[in-house]
Parts: sequence; structure tokens; C-alpha cells
Amino acid sequence: MVTAETAIDKIAQPSRRERGGRNARREQRAHGAQGMGRPFIVRGIPPYDIMAEENLVRIEETADRILAEIGIEFRDDPVALELWRRAGAEIDGVLVKFEPGMLRELLATAPAEFTQHARNPARSVRVGGNNVVFSPAYGSPFVMDLDRGRRYGTIEDFRNFIKLAQSSPWLHHSGGTICEPVDVPVNKRHLDMVYSHIKYSDRAFMGSVTAESRAEDSIEMARIVFGRDFVDRNCVILGNVNVNSPLVWDGTMTLALRAYARANQAAVVVPFILGGAMGPVTNAGAIAQSLAETMAGCALTQLERPGAPVIFGNFLSSMSLRSGSPTFGTPEPAVGSMVVGQLARRLRLPLRCSGNFTTSKLPDAHAMNEGTMSMLAAVHCGANFILHSAGFLDGLLSMSYEKFVMDADFCGALHTYLDGVKVDDNQLALDAFREVGPGNHFFGSAHTLANYETAFWDSEVADNEPFEKWEAAGSADAATRANRRWKKMLAEYEAPPLDEAIDEALIDFMARTGDAMEDAWY
Amino acid sequence: MVTAETAIDKIAQPSRRERGGRNARREQRAHGAQGMGRPFIVRGIPPYDIMAEENLVRIEETADRILAEIGIEFRDDPVALELWRRAGAEIDGVLVKFEPGMLRELLATAPAEFTQHARNPARSVRVGGNNVVFSPAYGSPFVMDLDRGRRYGTIEDFRNFIKLAQSSPWLHHSGGTICEPVDVPVNKRHLDMVYSHIKYSDRAFMGSVTAESRAEDSIEMARIVFGRDFVDRNCVILGNVNVNSPLVWDGTMTLALRAYARANQAAVVVPFILGGAMGPVTNAGAIAQSLAETMAGCALTQLERPGAPVIFGNFLSSMSLRSGSPTFGTPEPAVGSMVVGQLARRLRLPLRCSGNFTTSKLPDAHAMNEGTMSMLAAVHCGANFILHSAGFLDGLLSMSYEKFVMDADFCGALHTYLDGVKVDDNQLALDAFREVGPGNHFFGSAHTLANYETAFWDSEVADNEPFEKWEAAGSADAATRANRRWKKMLAEYEAPPLDEAIDEALIDFMARTGDAMEDAWY
Repeated sequence: MVTAETAIDKIAQPSRRERGGRNARREQRAHGAQGMGRPFIVRGIPPYDIMAEENLVRIEETADRILAEIGIEFRDDPVALELWRRAGAEIDGVLVKFEPGMLRELLATAPAEFTQHARNPARSVRVGGNNVVFSPAYGSPFVMDLDRGRRYGTIEDFRNFIKLAQSSPWLHHSGGTICEPVDVPVNKRHLDMVYSHIKYSDRAFMGSVTAESRAEDSIEMARIVFGRDFVDRNCVILGNVNVNSPLVWDGTMTLALRAYARANQAAVVVPFILGGAMGPVTNAGAIAQSLAETMAGCALTQLERPGAPVIFGNFLSSMSLRSGSPTFGTPEPAVGSMVVGQLARRLRLPLRCSGNFTTSKLPDAHAMNEGTMSMLAAVHCGANFILHSAGFLDGLLSMSYEKFVMDADFCGALHTYLDGVKVDDNQLALDAFREVGPGNHFFGSAHTLANYETAFWDSEVADNEPFEKWEAAGSADAATRANRRWKKMLAEYEAPPLDEAIDEALIDFMARTGDAMEDAWY
Repeated sequence: MVTAETAIDKIAQPSRRERGGRNARREQRAHGAQGMGRPFIVRGIPPYDIMAEENLVRIEETADRILAEIGIEFRDDPVALELWRRAGAEIDGVLVKFEPGMLRELLATAPAEFTQHARNPARSVRVGGNNVVFSPAYGSPFVMDLDRGRRYGTIEDFRNFIKLAQSSPWLHHSGGTICEPVDVPVNKRHLDMVYSHIKYSDRAFMGSVTAESRAEDSIEMARIVFGRDFVDRNCVILGNVNVNSPLVWDGTMTLALRAYARANQAAVVVPFILGGAMGPVTNAGAIAQSLAETMAGCALTQLERPGAPVIFGNFLSSMSLRSGSPTFGTPEPAVGSMVVGQLARRLRLPLRCSGNFTTSKLPDAHAMNEGTMSMLAAVHCGANFILHSAGFLDGLLSMSYEKFVMDADFCGALHTYLDGVKVDDNQLALDAFREVGPGNHFFGSAHTLANYETAFWDSEVADNEPFEKWEAAGSADAATRANRRWKKMLAEYEAPPLDEAIDEALIDFMARTGDAMEDAWY
């Protein structure tokens, strides 16, 4: 007789042998992407539309009035001002005002969807439409882990996070400034970062934006890898540029934005609006502002080079009016993202959102409560490129090894989630009900045995064992398990092959390059 | 000159004085509900519909075929069989088969929306439609806290959790068997539980279902509080009855279900489907089964008393095919809930879902990752009554003091989230942009000052302080902060007034009652 327990054994046996690799192998079988999961997700569930048409129109009209009546300053970039003047905007010093509808018209040349090529073609990502790309967190000065606590990031940490991302089947992109490698001189840092992405990962990546020359260096290194002509015709590198909200574009950013556009590479245009500081405390107003600022940045890429790929970005946040501190992963930006998603789709532009946000200083319950809410908002709002998908801690100040592992695992769960609920005869399982009947169990049924390999997401970080077994194994919490896991992943990391001639050419380029901004902190 | 810092001080000053009570008081002003938040949420965002009509129809057709071709067993309840026979079902022993469409027709008499009255009328909850009610977790044999670890629950724990729920402005319901008070004899336990809900809370609550007599005792105690006639005309108590999935209704449950319906009280009808065990491993099949089982239970309430309120319940879960253990808070049930929500709305029945699920043994990152995903699914799928909104740990085996506090705080965040993004002239803030202009900050602007009281959810559990300040205060993690918070809440708890005559009548009833099932563990 098959009891429940022996039936479970029968099912569990093969997966026990495969412990750690079952999900990855299942993905591999399903998608054939060289043993490392899918290159990106094609969502099986629609975005979550929460706002009615008439209110979306009111927000758009408010954005248009901000653009027409208040305007946006473009500082320290005379070329940008000249581009706006020629396009018919009203210029007063550095203040630019736009007739309603003008930016939308300019944006018509921007592609709704494009491919960012990876040096491993199987890893190229499709940005826009129903596609979702998970990319690591970006920009922390500090790193932290349970053993050493918080400290400034180094190039070793930077490489470690690239290796962890490369080792995870659930991330799709190598990211950009994963953490600041402060042990590398500032004038060489962007070179080391881009080189590390190319060397230690075969996924798509982001370049520098902290100066026009650094953006151009980043693109030049991409040309060494992909070839000059290919780069002129295809997107191979992204540059994440921030608005200096409210309503200011700094020259550093527009010069970088235009450098990427000029090279036919994609700028990611992101206002950073902390409500109550760089924007109003009311959500609808902050969203209207975000729309105005982002449209202006995206349109500028089309003035620089019509048809250049560009990503509509979103970074709403709130603040604690009790402490005056910024907050991340709170409900207002989460629900606001859904509206931003609707607005981006009305513009037919690919959308970037932020993922796993939190102000927590530890990879604890607080971190994953805020992070999960924030990440789900990004996924629900229809974001195509989700930056900060893994590692984010302490309001962007720290990159956490343990949280990286937890977040990457959650990205795995989101693959299953975004597949939605499939409906076909096998999934509906009418035969299984006929076989099993009332009051019996499904453990050993033919339907279960035929489907168990593809059934159920199985986290590598969660501990689903019974309490007693968990206790006997040392009562480890999630952070402790994640600590073990990133060490194992680093120990098992294997570098993807890189053509030797390309490697040498990159090293040669780096030796010859390095801008004059020795003293600058970006 | 107003600097950013002094402006923050100006804003933050009043809320600092009010520390801990600002959100509650803001709610009070907005909703006038006796200083304890809103009685329930009226959602401002629509449910998240993820499945197209044609696939919903295929699932409904599969449920109809399960009901017509395989059938459901109704064991140990001859009256239920007789009710089905009279309604025209096909009976073979205890197996009942239903013509397609028959159950839907019976369900037409069930109300789409109803009020469950609380003894404090300001706390009555509206169930169905756009309303959302948060209720604590239900049914754990163990409780745990950071000081004492895991142990069997007692009546003191039971009362503590009622007090914590009563003290939280973000829960709406007192719940039912929050934990098992194992120090009370089984034959008296249901009386002590119902009495505790009435005595220590003035919110709506749930009664016993573990035997028909206990269901009737629970209802009788409600009659003492509300009056016999009132109870006959109004819902004042819920009974949560489980299907013995797959496709079996046990007599214990249908007898309790019919007792509630007979008294015009609402049964909550919930299959417990652990995919791969009590249902197929494929999500669409498990959902079809859930629909079939729930429709049968809900329809039986209408045979017992047409028009009786009833709640369509949902409890999908998965299992780890690696360990054979049940899993909670995983992606399949989360995305499946959205489909169940669509099916419930097509039946025009109020929906119950489960909230903050996890298998974690600690209130850690794992707990809040799974819990947050699970709770958001309940909120997105349009659930009207969310059981297990706070405290759930270890796959329903433990009720955690710390997690209760974290979850209740997250329920607060969800109030803001479910309000959605309001759009009006004040929210759109065009005047604020005119006042502030490009490059300036919004800290001290008239719009910020006019709106800061209602701006931004401010968690009582999250720590948003800068790293250095958090470190200087002892580097506490979220669980440690939650530990301090539940102790403070219990210390400050004040019992709601209870009419002395009612209190005495309840005590008298309990002294006279107590079923004969001394030895039974339900």
C-alpha cells in the first residue's frame, strides 16, 4: 500500500539528489538557456491597472501644465538648450517651457520595445512590452554582510556581486554601479566597473553616467566587445540618468544622456522624487511631476538621435514626517507605481521601476516586508526593467550580501508568479479527480507523478522543514541561511569564457584612458 | 531662511509630540470611529483581474464536471443528504452529484454583502462588495515570543492576542480560535474563547465549529449579548468551516455549518487544498476543485435557510517537493487567489482569503517575505474577509507575538495602499509647483504644511532613522522592536466597557453549559 509518507518519498527522491539545482535545471529544460534560467520573463499576467482613464488624463494634463507654465531648467548644457530651441520650446535663460503635446509628439520616434544585447547572445534581454528584466541594486557606497558588518565597498565587493548575479538563474542583468568600489581612484573607477561586468558576467550591463567622458568611455568599451558597427545599430549598454528633481536637469546628466542616445544606446531616465522634499507630499502631484520630468528627458534623447532606445523611469519615494528621514518600500510609492505604469503604457515607452526597497539596516523582517511590497509593485505595474531587484538595504546606502541572496531567491518565485495560472486539460486535471476520487490523496497519482517536476516553486532560502527538524539543525534564521548561501555561490562561481583578444583590448584601452577629473566624487 | 533641516523640524514637531498616536488620530479625525481607526476598509483600487473570461469559464466548467461526474461525499450528516435529495441532487450512499448549474441557482439567494454586527456598533463590519476586513490568525496550537520561545498556547495567550488586536487601529475583527488555549478543558474551551472575545474586545468575532453543540453554544452566547430577535435578523457571529478536501464534507463541519445558517449567521466555507496532497499539483485543477467544494458548502447553507449570509472561502497552498513539507506564502497560491477572487465575484458572494502566511519558524526575513506576498495577494484578489491577517507563523502551527505586531503594522500600511491614488486639485498640487519652482524644495511650502498631517503612512515598527542613530540606539532588528511594542501595547490595554448584566448572564450560561465531549480533541 502506498501511504502518504512513502508516496512523498517517491516524489521527493529525485529532487533530493538534485538538491540546489532542481529549479535551475527545470528552467533549463523549459527554456534551453545554457543552464542559467530564462534570459528574461515574458509575463503571463497583465499589469495591474488601478486608475480610471479620466484621472489618468487629469494627471497628464497637470504634467502638461507644469511643463508649459512652470517649465524645467536645463543647466550647464548649452547644446541641450539649443536642441530645445530648434524643436520649438520656449527658452528663458536655462528655463525651458513646452507647449502641451509637444513632448508626446517627440516621443513618437522612441521604440516601444528593444533588445539589449549581451555578449552571450542567449542572455540578451528584451526591454518593453510584456517583458520583465531583473537587475541588481545600484549605487550604494557601503556593503554589508553578517560577518563583517557595514563598511565601504571595494572592487572586490563589486566583483563579488557581479559573480553572485551571474550565478543566480533568477536575475537577468548584471546591473551597473552595484556598489561604489572606493578603493579604485575615481578617475579610473568607471573603467574598472565596466570591465568587471564584461569579465565576470556574460549578461547585459550598464555604463557610467557621472561625466560625459565616462559615459563615452563606457560605450567605447562596449564597442571593443561588440564591434563599432554593431553598437551603432543595436543597444548593448544602458546609462541610468537622474533628474535633479524638482524640475531641474543638470548638465552632467543631460550630457551623459545625450552621449548614450548619440551612440544609439538606451538612457534610463529617472526622476528621484522624495515626496515632501523634491516633490509635493501628495501622490498625484508627485506622479504628475515625475511624468513631466521623465517625458522631457526621454524627448531629449529623441532630439539627439531620433529612434534611439530610451526607458521611462520611475523612482517615487516618501518620507517619515515623524523623523524627517526618507522612507522606502512604503505604500504610497507602491500604489503610485501602478499609476506610473499606466502612464508609461499610454506613451508606449518601456518602463523602469525600482525593486526591493527598504530603509532597514539589517536583512530582517522589516527589510523583506518593505522589499516584497516594493518589488511586487514593480512587477504589478508592468515595469520592464526592474533596477534594485536584489541587495538593496538602508535606503540605498548599503548593498547586503545576505539580502542579495534572499532577493534573488524571491526573483525566482516571481518567475512562477508572473507565469500566472495556465489553463489546459493537463492543468485542469479532470482525469486526476477521476483517478483519486473523494477522500483520497494525490501523492502517488499518475497526474502528480507526471507533473511534479514542474510543480511548485521551491525556494532555496526558505526553510519549510518541520519545527523539530529545523530546531535540530540549529534554528537558523533566514539571514544566517543566506549568509551560508552566498559563500557557497562565490566558492562555486565559474567565470564565463571571454575572448582573449577582447580582454587584452579592454585592458589596453583602460591603460590609455582615465579622465582628468581626479578629484571629483561623482 | 528656512533650510531643509529647520523645515523638517517644523513639520515633524507636532508629530513628535504625538509619537505613536499620529496615525490613529489622523484616522480618527477622518473617520470618527472612537479613536481606533476605521471599522473596515472600503477599497479605493479595483481587484486585480489576471485571467481572461474564456479561461474562467473553462475552470467553472471543470468544477461543474467534478460536481456532476465525480461528486462530493457528505459523511455523517443524514439531514444534509436529505436536503440535497429534496433539492434534486443525485444521491448514492454518501456521494452526492450535482447537475451543472444547480449549485449556482441555489446560491442566488445568498446575499452579496452583509453586515456583521459588533457589540460596539461603531465597530460593525461590512462583508462583501468593496469592503475589506482584517482578522487575526486562527487555529495555532502553539504560541511563541522572543523571550520564551515556542510553547503550547494558554487562555492567557488567547486573551493577550485579543487585547493586542483590540489595541490595534489596523485590525477590524477579533477573530476566532486565535490560538488553542490548551489549559482549558476541551469541553469548556469554546465557551471561554467566545467569552474572551466578548469580554476583552468590542469588535465582531467568530464562534466554535468543532461540534454542532459548540456552534450552538457560541450562537447562544451571541444571543445573550445582542438579543434573540436581533440575532435572528442580523449576522453577529461567523463560523469558519473546512472542507475535508478532496471532495469530502465531514458531518462535524456540515452540522456546524447548518447550525450557523439556521440561526441566520454566516458560515465561512473553506476548502483546505494542499496541492499534491488534497488536490492536484496543477494550479488550475486545484482552483476548479476549490470552486466545486466551496459552491457545495455555500449552497448547503441556502438549503438550510435561504438568504442566510455565507462567505466563499479560499485556502490554496502548495508543498515542497524537495522535503514533502507544506509550504505557505509561495507564488502559486498567491497568483491562484487572484483567479479565485474573479470566480467569487462571478458568483456574487463575499470572499474570504488567508493573509500573512509563512512556514518560517521565526519572525524573520523569510516570514515577512512570504507573509507580505501572501497578504498582498489577499488584498489584490478582492477578498472581503482576510483571516490570518496577523500573527501566523510556522505553517499555522505557531501564533507569534512579534509577528502579530509586525503584521498589524503592515495592515496599517495596507489602509493607505487600498485608498489608492486620489486625484483632485489639492492632490495634483499645481499651486505647489508654482510656489516652489524648479530646483527648490517642498519642505516648508504652503501645500506641504497644509497636507503633512495626512501625508504618508508612518510605520510604528520600521526604523527609518539614519544608520548611525539606529546603531547608537542599540542596532535592534525588527523582531526586537516588535517585542518591545507588544509588551507596551499589553501594558497600555484598556478593556472596552461591557454591560454588567450581560457579563453575568454569560458567566451563568457558561457555568450551566459544557458539552459531554470531555475526551474529544476536535
